[in-house]
Amino acid sequence: MTAATEMIPETMKAAVMHTPGHIAIEQLPVPEAGPDEVLIKVMAVGVCGSDVHYFEHGRIGPYVVRKPIILGHECAGIVVACGERVTRFAPGDRVAVEPGVTCGRCEQCKSGRYNLCPDVQFLATPPVDGAFVQYIKHREDFVFPIPDHVSFEEAAMAEPLSVGIHALNRAGFKPGGEVAIIGMGPVGLLAVAAAKAFGASRIYASDLEENRLQAALKLGATDAISGKAGDAAERILELTAQRGVDLAIETAGHPRALQTAMKVIKRGGKLSIVGLPPVDEVGFNVPFLCDNEIDIYGIFRYANTYPTGVRFLSSGMQGLSEIFTDRFPLERTQEAMVKAMTEKATSVKIIVYPNE
Amino acid sequence: MTAATEMIPETMKAAVMHTPGHIAIEQLPVPEAGPDEVLIKVMAVGVCGSDVHYFEHGRIGPYVVRKPIILGHECAGIVVACGERVTRFAPGDRVAVEPGVTCGRCEQCKSGRYNLCPDVQFLATPPVDGAFVQYIKHREDFVFPIPDHVSFEEAAMAEPLSVGIHALNRAGFKPGGEVAIIGMGPVGLLAVAAAKAFGASRIYASDLEENRLQAALKLGATDAISGKAGDAAERILELTAQRGVDLAIETAGHPRALQTAMKVIKRGGKLSIVGLPPVDEVGFNVPFLCDNEIDIYGIFRYANTYPTGVRFLSSGMQGLSEIFTDRFPLERTQEAMVKAMTEKATSVKIIVYPNE
Amino acid sequence: MTAATEMIPETMKAAVMHTPGHIAIEQLPVPEAGPDEVLIKVMAVGVCGSDVHYFEHGRIGPYVVRKPIILGHECAGIVVACGERVTRFAPGDRVAVEPGVTCGRCEQCKSGRYNLCPDVQFLATPPVDGAFVQYIKHREDFVFPIPDHVSFEEAAMAEPLSVGIHALNRAGFKPGGEVAIIGMGPVGLLAVAAAKAFGASRIYASDLEENRLQAALKLGATDAISGKAGDAAERILELTAQRGVDLAIETAGHPRALQTAMKVIKRGGKLSIVGLPPVDEVGFNVPFLCDNEIDIYGIFRYANTYPTGVRFLSSGMQGLSEIFTDRFPLERTQEAMVKAMTEKATSVKIIVYPNE
Amino acid sequence: MTAATEMIPETMKAAVMHTPGHIAIEQLPVPEAGPDEVLIKVMAVGVCGSDVHYFEHGRIGPYVVRKPIILGHECAGIVVACGERVTRFAPGDRVAVEPGVTCGRCEQCKSGRYNLCPDVQFLATPPVDGAFVQYIKHREDFVFPIPDHVSFEEAAMAEPLSVGIHALNRAGFKPGGEVAIIGMGPVGLLAVAAAKAFGASRIYASDLEENRLQAALKLGATDAISGKAGDAAERILELTAQRGVDLAIETAGHPRALQTAMKVIKRGGKLSIVGLPPVDEVGFNVPFLCDNEIDIYGIFRYANTYPTGVRFLSSGMQGLSEIFTDRFPLERTQEAMVKAMTEKATSVKIIVYPNE
Repeated sequence: MTAATEMIPETMKAAVMHTPGHIAIEQLPVPEAGPDEVLIKVMAVGVCGSDVHYFEHGRIGPYVVRKPIILGHECAGIVVACGERVTRFAPGDRVAVEPGVTCGRCEQCKSGRYNLCPDVQFLATPPVDGAFVQYIKHREDFVFPIPDHVSFEEAAMAEPLSVGIHALNRAGFKPGGEVAIIGMGPVGLLAVAAAKAFGASRIYASDLEENRLQAALKLGATDAISGKAGDAAERILELTAQRGVDLAIETAGHPRALQTAMKVIKRGGKLSIVGLPPVDEVGFNVPFLCDNEIDIYGIFRYANTYPTGVRFLSSGMQGLSEIFTDRFPLERTQEAMVKAMTEKATSVKIIVYPNE
Repeated sequence: MTAATEMIPETMKAAVMHTPGHIAIEQLPVPEAGPDEVLIKVMAVGVCGSDVHYFEHGRIGPYVVRKPIILGHECAGIVVACGERVTRFAPGDRVAVEPGVTCGRCEQCKSGRYNLCPDVQFLATPPVDGAFVQYIKHREDFVFPIPDHVSFEEAAMAEPLSVGIHALNRAGFKPGGEVAIIGMGPVGLLAVAAAKAFGASRIYASDLEENRLQAALKLGATDAISGKAGDAAERILELTAQRGVDLAIETAGHPRALQTAMKVIKRGGKLSIVGLPPVDEVGFNVPFLCDNEIDIYGIFRYANTYPTGVRFLSSGMQGLSEIFTDRFPLERTQEAMVKAMTEKATSVKIIVYPNE
Repeated sequence: MTAATEMIPETMKAAVMHTPGHIAIEQLPVPEAGPDEVLIKVMAVGVCGSDVHYFEHGRIGPYVVRKPIILGHECAGIVVACGERVTRFAPGDRVAVEPGVTCGRCEQCKSGRYNLCPDVQFLATPPVDGAFVQYIKHREDFVFPIPDHVSFEEAAMAEPLSVGIHALNRAGFKPGGEVAIIGMGPVGLLAVAAAKAFGASRIYASDLEENRLQAALKLGATDAISGKAGDAAERILELTAQRGVDLAIETAGHPRALQTAMKVIKRGGKLSIVGLPPVDEVGFNVPFLCDNEIDIYGIFRYANTYPTGVRFLSSGMQGLSEIFTDRFPLERTQEAMVKAMTEKATSVKIIVYPNE
Repeated sequence: MTAATEMIPETMKAAVMHTPGHIAIEQLPVPEAGPDEVLIKVMAVGVCGSDVHYFEHGRIGPYVVRKPIILGHECAGIVVACGERVTRFAPGDRVAVEPGVTCGRCEQCKSGRYNLCPDVQFLATPPVDGAFVQYIKHREDFVFPIPDHVSFEEAAMAEPLSVGIHALNRAGFKPGGEVAIIGMGPVGLLAVAAAKAFGASRIYASDLEENRLQAALKLGATDAISGKAGDAAERILELTAQRGVDLAIETAGHPRALQTAMKVIKRGGKLSIVGLPPVDEVGFNVPFLCDNEIDIYGIFRYANTYPTGVRFLSSGMQGLSEIFTDRFPLERTQEAMVKAMTEKATSVKIIVYPNE
């Protein structure tokens, strides 16, 4: 294992959730990188909706928190040590972390859809611990170098940005097309950024909250549609001269948002579903879907998106810094989670800094 | 206009529906082919579910029968005269007819999806008359030559076969994959034939009626799943060792059939929806769709499938002749329609012969 | 036919090439728009390499100038009259013209590849006259509205821009990827602009002429590689850390440029060939092509690109105005052609204005 | 490690090539399966052109035989022992072996193109030993179960069959299309079998040797074109009524065969290049390639084809048994190689049996 350029302590602080809603700071041993792994000093971690969901409910569908867990999976940091077979990194490298580590051997992995690997180990998905902690180890092939001019919190955004990239890739989105994105939580906002980077000629962003619509416009949305000002689908269709959009992306996870998304798609257009609704069944207008030959793509995380995401971040993405509304040290992770859970009208993206 | 090899009469018999449920034989003028058209002596016409639907209800969704109409759109015949600009045909040619004539100039036509052309003229879709008649004229680019060894009733099957081909093409089906087809009406049966021709390694066919399952096996289905013998989805999953199929095709048009179809799809698999359910909304399991990254493709008719369909028919498709259960002369079209409407347990495909 | 808002004269000036190298201004009748056509007052026409080739050699491969011809096919103007079936335009509309009018009925047209239509009528391709003239008529479905803030010369660039878009589309280029473009003539420069609009993260532009490399940088190239400064392929590979690019686009039409393009492609990468070399055979390194599973795409004009191109132009393309180096009235078309033929080191894009 | 059902000896016979052209039988230790590996008793090994090339020349391009090597990579056998983490196999299972073992972690592996993995370990590619031996160990994820009714020599054919499947997949071949395959060596013959399984409506097979053309017809070729009877390209074009084929596959590895393949492609058609010519440069008709928008796909081995290939073999492939012209025990591997090298007019596929 390569010697680190800075002293690695034996123990570290970690924000551990013992029961839903309760995160405590504990002292844990610093992990040791395996032969193919790097040890990363975690510099910034975004609070994601799924972290909040585990914090609030203790589960997401079939994934149940059964023992104490460390949350957080949108992270970036500095490599401080390298396993003996690591070839791409050296201590001191600034990196973004792709949180899912896959088997590389199943049918899904081999065919390029490793996000569907049944054996994936994904940060902060039970029972795997996450990144609200000072150090993590990670297999080097899921770690990506970032240039100096990209901040750690921006680099951490490679994760939600990847969801947007994947939603566009899955739908075969062609540059120049028009996109409607429903739901301007962080995933929706970074889908706006991704659509902008993909050369979308028009990006309709829809949400209920004014602060999020403002952020969307800064990130490149051409039109902000407030769900409070009437029927969003009607308004988007009007703006497209009733033609509809080439692609709709649903990120809100509400049945009605999904139905709005469906309505604004042009004949022959597409729908990527990112948001998980809280119910098992959502009513789809099947005659509309057939008559118009809509394609629907279920989106689960992402695959092969980090190289693209890091390139986009390196080129500079307009308005990105504006989404970071709240910053907390690791010690105040509990407070960060509560804020994320309760203050959607004022907070957009909350970042936790484990080493500041 | 090229002289015909046989005498073309001035008038002809036509099966006209004046009000839903009532078809009468009338004498009408034989149409004259325009410069780009051929005049076709209609030799065989299949009775399609949509014909039966217009016969029973007088409408299909937004398409309403407002004046007397001639039904029938699955047809084949003999070219008897050619317009002055026709280059590909001569009188005497045996042909299959692709029933929709499109504009060739809109965005959909230009991008290869002419089935979505808003100006399509489709046989037997109001207000366009269909093929339960002795002669029709048709633009030559939607007419396809068939070899002598393909019968007219087989050639008429190029139409429902096209739906199956399109459902496979839209889903990017790869030869060697496994398919489940739900609903063994004629469209489902010809989807079985299409899947067989596409090199599917296993074809699960599901229906409630035993006669249709038997037909499916003759056409190439490897497994017949009776919906009467318990949960069809469970049975199909069991046969795939719980892996699920690469592609499910729903042709039954029932909400429960659609849900069965969804359940049997493998992780990363696909669903083509052909059947129109009689209700506007069908409940979809969205978390399942997202977690497993299912693709759903709405299917509306077909495009660019006739050349392929005619090739398959020319190569010979096993068991095809077995689906023709009933044959009627044009004079008994009313009887043919009533039978198609009422006797699904015994009839499969009913053919009307306007010139015998 | 809709009455025009301005007086349409009976005759007009036209720049007619009677023999290669000799263009004379003649007075011809103004054409009359057919029922599906619009009459366009031509406001700007770009001089294209193919115009220059006909001017110099009287032929391009199988296309031979056998009678007097009007050249020019990159054009934009104002609709002044509309045929009786025209629905999308009214006199006064500012428009870009897609120069090829296709049949809409052949296999190629129906499958979305209308650029391969054997019956295409393409402006300035013998024997069809082109746009170095005051008025042309054109089928409305190949005419596209442009907003007021796009100048006519920019709108005329939708044509060469379309070639770049098509080269990217054919290769399935994914935003974020790296592109090398060989040859910075106008087609190469607009391929740079297209790649930028498609979200390419890095664009390597190669040429021998410094003025063209400067234009490339203004249009969005990240790296300008002078072929005079050593081996361009070696330099590009070095800049990619020997990884190679995702896509190379060859526009120069020289065998050596093609070989340079091939060498800089990454394993699993792609090559779009736009430039026609002056010889029939170019040596390809087949073992390299196989070992690295390169895809090669022949590019012939474009299809379904104008809507995208006009959207990109409407959004504003950086540096585009800089490529217009020379401007001539119609009367001096001969001079414009000679300049385009002889002064590649100083001229980039030459525009002819038929109505100024 | 699971106990085997039969006694595993400590040593085994192996056919070792010390210098090109000289194979000797030696006694070597039986390998021990690692934790993710199975130990396979090799029952049948096909002699491949690449084995013959190493035998004759000691190298293939950059792959040079620098130390004694065991050749042979088309193999099937019986699992006799399983590493401790193996889950899919038990001793006694009959299996086909995919010969390349990849890293699962590089960009190529992750994106589904693992055949381009730079760290692949491929049987019988220096310095990795192959399958002309009694036992090999292999990672379980590259081993595939075969049913009892598939013989070991048929199962070994999953390897060359995979090349054909990959050549069709890469070109996006659609069932019902027409294919020309140039070169009826074993790879070409199995490409015929693959095209048949993919639902090709017409398969033109071209070669110089009559025995190979006969085998092609048995495997499903519709037309056998002898290169000795005149210009093969002309003949194929004539049979397609000058339209050309949708896809040509070149397997012969001769420059002229490649040029023949190019000539028979329809406008908008495709070419997969499988055969490696013995020279670095082959002249391509670039104007033809551009004018007709040909796609060319370099083919290097295959990826994700074994499941499909095994399914095809399990369904039964007509004529397959006819290609096995010669059979040798392991002791006579030298003789088998010499025969493969010298008697192409009489031998098609030669099989070596290490355990009979």
